[in-house]
Amino acid sequence: MHFLDLILKKRNGSSLTTEEIRYFVTNYVAGNIPDYQMAALLMAIWFVGMDERETADLTFAMRDSGEIIDLSDIPGVIVDKHSTGGVADTTSLITTPIVAACGAKVAKISGRGLGHTGGTIDKLESIPGFSTDIEMSRFRQIVADCGISIIGQTQNLVPADKLLYALRDTTGTVDNISLISSSIMSKKLASGSEAIVLDVKTGNGAFMKNRDEAEALARAMVSIGKAAGKDVLALVTDMNQPLGNAVGNALEVREAIDILQGDHQGNLLDVSTELAVRMILLAGVADDETTARSNVAAALQSGKALDRLAAMIEAHGGDPEVCRDTSRLPAADKVISIRSGAAGYVTGMAANEIGMAAMLLGAGRARKSDTIDPAVGLWMKKRIGDYVDKGDELAVFHVSDTSRLEEAESRFLRAITLGQEPPGKMPLIYAIISCP
Amino acid sequence: MHFLDLILKKRNGSSLTTEEIRYFVTNYVAGNIPDYQMAALLMAIWFVGMDERETADLTFAMRDSGEIIDLSDIPGVIVDKHSTGGVADTTSLITTPIVAACGAKVAKISGRGLGHTGGTIDKLESIPGFSTDIEMSRFRQIVADCGISIIGQTQNLVPADKLLYALRDTTGTVDNISLISSSIMSKKLASGSEAIVLDVKTGNGAFMKNRDEAEALARAMVSIGKAAGKDVLALVTDMNQPLGNAVGNALEVREAIDILQGDHQGNLLDVSTELAVRMILLAGVADDETTARSNVAAALQSGKALDRLAAMIEAHGGDPEVCRDTSRLPAADKVISIRSGAAGYVTGMAANEIGMAAMLLGAGRARKSDTIDPAVGLWMKKRIGDYVDKGDELAVFHVSDTSRLEEAESRFLRAITLGQEPPGKMPLIYAIISCP
Repeated sequence: MHFLDLILKKRNGSSLTTEEIRYFVTNYVAGNIPDYQMAALLMAIWFVGMDERETADLTFAMRDSGEIIDLSDIPGVIVDKHSTGGVADTTSLITTPIVAACGAKVAKISGRGLGHTGGTIDKLESIPGFSTDIEMSRFRQIVADCGISIIGQTQNLVPADKLLYALRDTTGTVDNISLISSSIMSKKLASGSEAIVLDVKTGNGAFMKNRDEAEALARAMVSIGKAAGKDVLALVTDMNQPLGNAVGNALEVREAIDILQGDHQGNLLDVSTELAVRMILLAGVADDETTARSNVAAALQSGKALDRLAAMIEAHGGDPEVCRDTSRLPAADKVISIRSGAAGYVTGMAANEIGMAAMLLGAGRARKSDTIDPAVGLWMKKRIGDYVDKGDELAVFHVSDTSRLEEAESRFLRAITLGQEPPGKMPLIYAIISCP
Repeated sequence: MHFLDLILKKRNGSSLTTEEIRYFVTNYVAGNIPDYQMAALLMAIWFVGMDERETADLTFAMRDSGEIIDLSDIPGVIVDKHSTGGVADTTSLITTPIVAACGAKVAKISGRGLGHTGGTIDKLESIPGFSTDIEMSRFRQIVADCGISIIGQTQNLVPADKLLYALRDTTGTVDNISLISSSIMSKKLASGSEAIVLDVKTGNGAFMKNRDEAEALARAMVSIGKAAGKDVLALVTDMNQPLGNAVGNALEVREAIDILQGDHQGNLLDVSTELAVRMILLAGVADDETTARSNVAAALQSGKALDRLAAMIEAHGGDPEVCRDTSRLPAADKVISIRSGAAGYVTGMAANEIGMAAMLLGAGRARKSDTIDPAVGLWMKKRIGDYVDKGDELAVFHVSDTSRLEEAESRFLRAITLGQEPPGKMPLIYAIISCP
C-alpha cells in the first residue's frame, strides 16, 4: 500500500477502506508517513468528507493507537460526559457528583482550556492541593471508592489524536465533522466508560456557531458510539451567552459549589440537571426519566452530590473544606465593578469575546504553553433579557495582573448588546440525539 | 501575514492577492513555511483552483525566486520552444536548428526524461563528447555564434519550482492546470527568451490524456505569457502514438539527423515543421506563413539546418561528424526484431506503454536517480493505420542489458492493438492557441 495512492483516492472522491484507514493511522503514529503527506490527505478529507463507516473506522484506528483503559473490574456502571467546550461551562463539576450520588460511577479524563474556552482540569487544579496527575491505579481506586474521579489526559491515550490534532491546527483542517467527531470519540472510547453523554454546544461561544452543524456533529458522534457498541446520547445546547455567571477557574469552582449547595438557579443548573438525568438513565440506575429527575433533585437537596465532590477532592489531595467555605479558594488581588454606560435590555452577548476578556485577565491561555492564574476571571451580573440602567454593574472582574485590564474591559463591554425591547426567549436545549 | 490564514482563505474559495502569493512563494523558498503547511495549501488549490490573475502572480513569484537570465545583449530575436513531454518526441533536435538556419536564435534550457517520456538533455548527451553542463557565459557565446544552444537546468533557475514540484509529486497535487502552467512558464520566463512556442501534447502518451484539458493548459500558459509581456503561442498536438519511430536517446538523435538530412517524412517532421514555422513567425524573421514555410523547406533541403546542429554539437564539445555518419553514435549490443503474432490493421498504440517498454530496456528512468544507457531503445516499424501480417516486424529493439527484455517485449506487444478494419485518420494538430 502506498500512501500517495490513498491521498489520490480520497482526493478523487472515493471512500477509503477499513484497512487503508488503519494503515495510515498506524503508520503516521509510527513516523512512517511524513507530515506533508498527512496534511495533503487531511485537506482532501476536508473537501471530500468521510462517510459514516469511514468516520467510525478512523475513530477506532485512532482509539487503538495507544493505551485503552479497561474499567470493567470496577463494580457498577461507569458513565462519562463530554462537552465540546464553551464559556462558563462548569457542568462537569456539577453533573458528575450528582451522578455519583445517584449510584453510577464517573471515570473522567478531561482537558485544559485554550482560547476563549475553559477546561475542567484547570478548574480542579485551582482547588488548593488538588492533583489531576495521578497514577492509573489510584484513579481506578478513587472511582471505586468515591464514585467519581477526574484526571488529565495521559501521554499514552490516543497518541494518533495528539499528532493529528497538532497537524490539523496548523493546516486549516480542524473544522470537519468527521475529523472532529473521530478526535473526540477516539478519546472517549479509549477511556473505558460504557455509556457517554455528549453536550454539543452551539452559538457564538461554541466551536459550532451554527445549530445544523452542531446537530450533524452530535449525530456523527452518536453514530460512532453505536458502531463501537456503546450507549451514547447527545444534547445540543445553547452557547450564545456564558452558560453560568463565573468565567475563570476558581470562580467557576465557586459557582459549581454554590449550585451543589442549592443556592442558585439558572441555565448552568438546568443543563447540568439535564446531563445528569441522561447519564443516570444510560447508566441504568433509574428506571425512567421521572425517577431520574427526582433522584437528581434529591442528590442536590440532601447535599449528597456536594459530599461526592468533597470526597473526590480529598482523594485527589485537595482541600475538601472548599465545599463548605469557598473563601478557601484562591482570590484575586482586586475586585472591580464593570458598569454599563447605557440603559436597555441585554439582547445579546458575544460569549467567545467574554471568554477572551477573561483570558486577557489571565484566566485562560492564548497558546498551550501559556500559564494561567487560577484566581482571576470575571463574574457576570446580568444575563440576556435582563434590564440594565446606566451605571448598573454588568460584571465583576477579579484581577491580579492589571496589564491588560483596559483591553479586557473594552472587549467585555463590546460583547454586550443592549436594545430598547426585551429579546425573545431563547431555547437552552435544542435537541436530544440518540441512536435510532 | 499568517500562512494559516492564506490556507483558510484559499480553502474557503477565495482568490489570494498578488502580495499573498508572493509572500508564500518567497517564504517557502526561504524555509520559513513548513512542508506540511504548503502541502495543505497545494491541496486546497487543487480543489478550489486559481484564477488567471492568481496563476500569473504565482508564475511571476516563482520566476523571481532565483536567477533570471538576461539575453538582451545577444543580437537578434531569441525564441524558445517547450513540449509538455511525450514518446519519440524529438522535435527540439529538429526544430531548433531549422529556426537557427532561418535567422532566429534559440537559447534553450531543457530537462531530462522521467518515466515513459524522454528528455532533450539525455538525447544530446548520447552524442560522444557533448556536454550540456557549461558556463552561462559559454551558453550565450554559442547562441550568438551558432544561433542555438541547449543546456540543462541550472541550480539557480526557479528554485521555487524545484521545491514545489517535489512536494506536489508526493502529495497528489501535480495534476492542476494552474500549478502545471506556472511550473512550466516560470522556467520559460526565467530563461530569457522573448518569444515562446509551446507544444502541448494530448493522448495516451501525454500527461494530458484529454484534449479539453490540454487546450485548457495551453490557454493558461498563453495567458501567463501575455501577462508577462511575451509573445507566446501554443500548438495542441497528438500523442496517441509515438510521434517519431525512434524511442531511446541515441536512436532519437539518429532519427532527427535522418530528418534533417531530408531522408524521412511523417508525423515527427510535420510537427517539427509546424513548430518551426510558428517560432520563425514569432521571432519576426519571416513576414508571413507562406514565407516561413518556404524558408523551413529551404533550410532542410539546403542542409543549412543540419549545419546548425553540427555547429552546436561542436561548440558543446561533441562530435559533429555524427551529422554525416550516424553510425558514430553509441550502438547497443544486440538488435532484435519484434514480430506480430497476428494480422490486421494497427488501430491503436498505447504510447505511454511503448515509452515504458523502452525504459525497461534501459533508455529511461523509473526514478530521477536511475542511470540510463544512451544506446538502447526501440525503433517502431509500423504506425497506426498500417496493415500487419502475422510475423511482420513491428519494431526493432536495441538491447544491451537483457534482464528485462521479456517484460519489455510483452509490454510493447500489449501496447499495439490490431483490428480488421483500417482506423479513421487521426488529426496531428488539434489546435493553435494564441493571445486574443
